Amino acid sequence: MGGNTNTNKKRGVEWRINMGDGTSRVLEAESRFGLQRFVSKVGGFFQRAWRLGVNEPKKSIHCVKVGLALSLVSLFYYMRPLYNGVGGNAMWAVMTVVVVFEYTVGATLCKCVNRATGTFLAGALGVGVHWVARQSGERFEPIILQASVFLLATAATFSRFIPSIKARFDYGVMIFILTFSLISVSGYRVEKLFEMAHHRLSTIAIGASICIITTILFCPVWAGTELHNLIRNNMDKLSDSLDGCVADYFNTNSETSDKTLQGFKCALNSKATEESLANFARWEPAHGKFSFRHPWLEYVKVGASLRSCAYCIEALNGSMNLDAKVPDVLKQHFGNFCVRLSNKSSAVMKELAVVMSTMKKPTRIDFMVEEMRIAVQELENALKSLSKHPILPPEAKAGEAVTLVEVVPLVTVSSLLIEIAARTEKLVGAVNVVAEKAEFEVETAEEAKKGQSSKGGSKVGDEDKSEGLSL
Amino acid sequence: MGGNTNTNKKRGVEWRINMGDGTSRVLEAESRFGLQRFVSKVGGFFQRAWRLGVNEPKKSIHCVKVGLALSLVSLFYYMRPLYNGVGGNAMWAVMTVVVVFEYTVGATLCKCVNRATGTFLAGALGVGVHWVARQSGERFEPIILQASVFLLATAATFSRFIPSIKARFDYGVMIFILTFSLISVSGYRVEKLFEMAHHRLSTIAIGASICIITTILFCPVWAGTELHNLIRNNMDKLSDSLDGCVADYFNTNSETSDKTLQGFKCALNSKATEESLANFARWEPAHGKFSFRHPWLEYVKVGASLRSCAYCIEALNGSMNLDAKVPDVLKQHFGNFCVRLSNKSSAVMKELAVVMSTMKKPTRIDFMVEEMRIAVQELENALKSLSKHPILPPEAKAGEAVTLVEVVPLVTVSSLLIEIAARTEKLVGAVNVVAEKAEFEVETAEEAKKGQSSKGGSKVGDEDKSEGLSL
Repeated sequence: MGGNTNTNKKRGVEWRINMGDGTSRVLEAESRFGLQRFVSKVGGFFQRAWRLGVNEPKKSIHCVKVGLALSLVSLFYYMRPLYNGVGGNAMWAVMTVVVVFEYTVGATLCKCVNRATGTFLAGALGVGVHWVARQSGERFEPIILQASVFLLATAATFSRFIPSIKARFDYGVMIFILTFSLISVSGYRVEKLFEMAHHRLSTIAIGASICIITTILFCPVWAGTELHNLIRNNMDKLSDSLDGCVADYFNTNSETSDKTLQGFKCALNSKATEESLANFARWEPAHGKFSFRHPWLEYVKVGASLRSCAYCIEALNGSMNLDAKVPDVLKQHFGNFCVRLSNKSSAVMKELAVVMSTMKKPTRIDFMVEEMRIAVQELENALKSLSKHPILPPEAKAGEAVTLVEVVPLVTVSSLLIEIAARTEKLVGAVNVVAEKAEFEVETAEEAKKGQSSKGGSKVGDEDKSEGLSL
Repeated sequence: MGGNTNTNKKRGVEWRINMGDGTSRVLEAESRFGLQRFVSKVGGFFQRAWRLGVNEPKKSIHCVKVGLALSLVSLFYYMRPLYNGVGGNAMWAVMTVVVVFEYTVGATLCKCVNRATGTFLAGALGVGVHWVARQSGERFEPIILQASVFLLATAATFSRFIPSIKARFDYGVMIFILTFSLISVSGYRVEKLFEMAHHRLSTIAIGASICIITTILFCPVWAGTELHNLIRNNMDKLSDSLDGCVADYFNTNSETSDKTLQGFKCALNSKATEESLANFARWEPAHGKFSFRHPWLEYVKVGASLRSCAYCIEALNGSMNLDAKVPDVLKQHFGNFCVRLSNKSSAVMKELAVVMSTMKKPTRIDFMVEEMRIAVQELENALKSLSKHPILPPEAKAGEAVTLVEVVPLVTVSSLLIEIAARTEKLVGAVNVVAEKAEFEVETAEEAKKGQSSKGGSKVGDEDKSEGLSL
């Protein structure tokens, strides 16, 4: 095929001439083809963009919010004519809005606080250094200023490599370096510096308040809520894909879609998102069901625990894809136990998702874990019985002895399922720590029922959100 | 213990009174204790920072480079006195240096290009919109300007959610929004705007050139080289930890350190780092062994392939930690085959690391893969023989029949090792694609020997670097 296309391309000119009247038509067709391809490419781009916008209304709303905040800040400066232009202080307000406005409330707050603190500290230090430099005479002044810029920039940049500072104050340190350098480069006298610092801080305050007001008042996107939903959806997906792939392997239910089967990959890839959301969530005030000191860092541990389950499911998926020659009789026999265990494990995960979602202390979970343990025991017994009882089906001929190598895939799947059950128990422990630290309430019997029935509904809506996050 | 401390705290006052002359002394001791704790805390912080700096000289050098670039840019403005202060254009050069200077050359180049392009496009569009607004009369001017800011900010923010734009042009889009808003807010006439745009672009060019010169001339840190080393070190670590944990399980060598065993976790957690490095590496010019169009995106695929091995090693590690009651005879019997297979697989990984490191076409690899396949076959045969031959040791009593459940851990370990071997073959495929696309040279026999002998030396030095990246 490739060779054919090549020949067509090379012989394009001849072919056109051969056509006689077709010369211009063919040329037109070719250029139209190029234009068509361009149009369809651009069209495809916009179509995908449109789908993104429609599927994730939160993101579209965020864009409108940015536009709104910028309009507000520019309106602010239109109202009291400040026509000394971009060089003036107005630009600091605009700049603050553009740079500080983030998708989640926590990220915006984090940047606002960082920007204000960084500017203030650098301003104070800058004025001090300026004063010292002035006192030491005209000859030493530039040397002192240069040296201070060099030393402070070096030290501050170094601090950005320290993980704990990087996680929370990276932006603040950058603003510190920026402000300090600007002050040193500027030739202002100290008295004028004070005035400038006052203007600068007040414009930053204006920009920051506009950002905070816009982000909190109009459809706020809380980092905490996003993290909460992400963890809960990952639990749901993991549970679905565990169920799906075991059922798929044992042919009990072949309708599972590929998307469901690959659900565990979301959990595998969401480490960075979880950590940054947890970092931002710590800046957020109380909102919805979450108090100010909600144990967000524990959520990261739950996420890590989920990921360790996901690793096992990945390995399980891998060993299932091997072309195994397991005798059907055995597969059916074992299938019952494996499917039961996977059902129990995934039920525990689903229940944990409900616990996280309703924020009620788990009541049924101990019972379900007990059921899971019984299923593990049953599977282990099945493995035991395999070596005690004859594993040959009655109709097998003598030459077709079932060798151990034929049950290897079954044994592997079984022991990975047992390992997944063990990790699910650890996950239960991690969720229990969250429930304790966040002081989840005890669930009443009616609520338990309600939670069960509303589970299906809430799940569908939230799946989109977490996908958006993992994009 | 916790209760005890509590009581001490509560009874602190009484105890002091009881001491009689001790009141002031105790107070002093307490405050000294507090001060001591503070000093030791600060000391510990600086100690850790010092260790970070000593262990990763590249990072320390980067900090000095930032200081240098800032000194250079401020020197530039000291030399031709420009005392209209921070509001003037000097600040744009300083700002560019602070914001644009990144750890790797690729990231710096990416930001420079983004900043220049964003400013230029927004400037051109801003001047156009300003002209249109002027033409449409005083009444409509603010409306048109406001509407354009709102619409463009919304659209541009939306484009930042599109993954392909986010990966490469996120910063440029932000600068576009910033510049366009600044121009719209400013009340300049169009003629003055041109002048301002010229000044702005030239100062940005000065800042960007200082950054690029500093970052490339003084100990450059290339994103490509970092990615290259990261992938190679992860291969080494994966290979060591596979070897180590199998040897540990079968007790053939219990000296493996915990750090080596956990080496696979580096590969599990480096996805985000790999992707961002690959994105930055694409901006870099030819350097060292790498040409401009080096297939960096293929490195990401090699990384993904490595991670899929790491998932399996993680599951292997998990199933080894189970308290298994495997009879020693069997363990010894199987140990030989398992250790051999893990040695072969890890040797393949080590060889791939050498291939990546020397950038020579693999010559021995086919042979080693063949050896690995033979080891897989041997292990499978051992599994087969287990069911054919009596697996009971001769000295066992009748009551102690070895049941299948006792070999479950062995079977699981074996089949995970077989799966790891299969994934290692895929890894070989991924490396082969890199070797082909990057046109690795064919290795001569002497070079092969040299590569083998220098392997140990180069590994130790580079391990630090990749750790730094994964921090």
